[in-house]
Amino acid sequence: MRVAVLGSGMMGTAMAWPLADRGHAVTLVGTHLDGEIVEALRRGAAHPGLGVAVPDGVRAVPVGDVVQALADAEAVIVGVSSPGIHWAGRTLAGALGRRIPIAMITKGLEPAGDGLAVLPDLLREALPESMRVHPVAIGGPCIAGELARRREAAVVFAGRDAVDVRLFAEALAAPYYRPTASDDPVGVCVCAALKNAYATAVGIGGGLLEREGVVRGPVAMHNLEAAIFARAAIEIAAVVRAMGGNAGSALGLAGAGDLFVTTSGGRSSRLGRLLGLGRSLEEARTELGNPTLEGVDIARLFHERIPAGIAVDDVRLLRFLGEVLFARADARRIFEVT
Amino acid sequence: MRVAVLGSGMMGTAMAWPLADRGHAVTLVGTHLDGEIVEALRRGAAHPGLGVAVPDGVRAVPVGDVVQALADAEAVIVGVSSPGIHWAGRTLAGALGRRIPIAMITKGLEPAGDGLAVLPDLLREALPESMRVHPVAIGGPCIAGELARRREAAVVFAGRDAVDVRLFAEALAAPYYRPTASDDPVGVCVCAALKNAYATAVGIGGGLLEREGVVRGPVAMHNLEAAIFARAAIEIAAVVRAMGGNAGSALGLAGAGDLFVTTSGGRSSRLGRLLGLGRSLEEARTELGNPTLEGVDIARLFHERIPAGIAVDDVRLLRFLGEVLFARADARRIFEVT
Repeated sequence: MRVAVLGSGMMGTAMAWPLADRGHAVTLVGTHLDGEIVEALRRGAAHPGLGVAVPDGVRAVPVGDVVQALADAEAVIVGVSSPGIHWAGRTLAGALGRRIPIAMITKGLEPAGDGLAVLPDLLREALPESMRVHPVAIGGPCIAGELARRREAAVVFAGRDAVDVRLFAEALAAPYYRPTASDDPVGVCVCAALKNAYATAVGIGGGLLEREGVVRGPVAMHNLEAAIFARAAIEIAAVVRAMGGNAGSALGLAGAGDLFVTTSGGRSSRLGRLLGLGRSLEEARTELGNPTLEGVDIARLFHERIPAGIAVDDVRLLRFLGEVLFARADARRIFEVT
Repeated sequence: MRVAVLGSGMMGTAMAWPLADRGHAVTLVGTHLDGEIVEALRRGAAHPGLGVAVPDGVRAVPVGDVVQALADAEAVIVGVSSPGIHWAGRTLAGALGRRIPIAMITKGLEPAGDGLAVLPDLLREALPESMRVHPVAIGGPCIAGELARRREAAVVFAGRDAVDVRLFAEALAAPYYRPTASDDPVGVCVCAALKNAYATAVGIGGGLLEREGVVRGPVAMHNLEAAIFARAAIEIAAVVRAMGGNAGSALGLAGAGDLFVTTSGGRSSRLGRLLGLGRSLEEARTELGNPTLEGVDIARLFHERIPAGIAVDDVRLLRFLGEVLFARADARRIFEVT
């Protein structure tokens, strides 16, 4: 199969491993932000974020070649950042010209009316009728750097179109990459979008203890972090339910699994640690080197207003995170909302 | 209230902090194994496991004084080790002589007929009719060493008798110790009993990567461990459901929360790490200094036979752990069962 991956960030590029290992012809299409990455990959150099070169045969092309790259693609994987989803929609709408299966690793939630929409539904709406598929959402614990080293990951492929779900799941299954099919794209997308915010909340617990000089060990294994983790899982399930998804998704790979791996390192949990240590959002952002912080956007969404259908108390931890981030609430009060 | 705690191990003793801070008169009753602990506490020395002395006014008495200690108690908390539950039942049956509320932090599952029983039900059966209460099960993420330092913990008090649940929850609530009432003792007990075994399974993931020389960091945050964690949460929910409990308990403090803290350190997860590194159970046990390994007992229970009402595939990860522990199956195969 000829597969175009839109976006050559870490996760988009990492998809090239199972794709190439399964014999598919892969074209990575850089976005406007990916110029240096495409340049490196074309030279055979390592991907700057992943630290390894892509498998032999994987092509990387700049954004200017997107029409050509999509021309003979039999499937597309959208791997842009959350804010890039609108560009991806416009680009596919302008360049595809036919109905082909679409999967997406891009995660996020967007306001829609007085509620929220998941990204596969937004992408679908951006496509003209003749190309309108139900994009397949990919969720579950999958750090790109590990996938690019062929280390085991079990993931979830979820969509409203069971045929397209199966197509992608079968096309990508590799000894080290195991997709499980799901018919709950809403649940999987909500889990994927919320986990960064909640990983930040869990990180606050660790930062608070560090501030008190507590070292992790047999005596301190962080009951507080675990209470926040449990509360996070419950709130994720509540939002999934409120948006019409299957709350069971919050228990498995997409929910508890992805939250677990996201709390074990990465930007979101490091942001939480710094907030627990007493830093403001701006101080923490600077200290982290101004990275994209997806969880901050999600927390802002819920800070500005409670989306329709969701009870305030059901997201009290997420709301509290918003107060810490945007209103400098004292992070030490987090135990009250867990 | 006068409260007797049966067992002066780490967790039993740690209960003295919220009890004493709430003004209750606490008597810790050592078991046959707790001689040195009682001796230390009576001298005002630190508890050998906790590293701190108990709050002022907390009494510690040796096992010989158990009848006297229970004579004027208004409530009992059972804090013995899992195998000690039968001794605790006989002791309470012989010494209480009246119906008083009982709570328990002792965790475990025992074979009963062709199925399994949770410990509050076993303890209840050990009591004569006139003393027969529904013991309140205490679950959720609560490492004793942290509780004994008044660090925040949110826990679950679960029982079939809502009055007794409320009595204990109100009596123990402290600024740093927050009990939530639950009417699902089966769910809470199953979560508490299984978590050690599953923390060992999660630990295997870390050990396997360590064996390959992988260091945790931004690139390696352990998708495999997260997949095992997610599978663990799903299997715990399945066992809870099969035993008539509320699968929702697996998502919150008792389930995901306690599993999270148990995977973040402690004997169970260290055992898993060693298994992942290729050690046998006996080698690992020696290397860990021959501690009690509750998870091993639970894994053996499911290794010997599948309890009635539980489908084999629903506990395939737990069964695999049994094969690694007792039949030297290759731990590297764990990805197959997640």
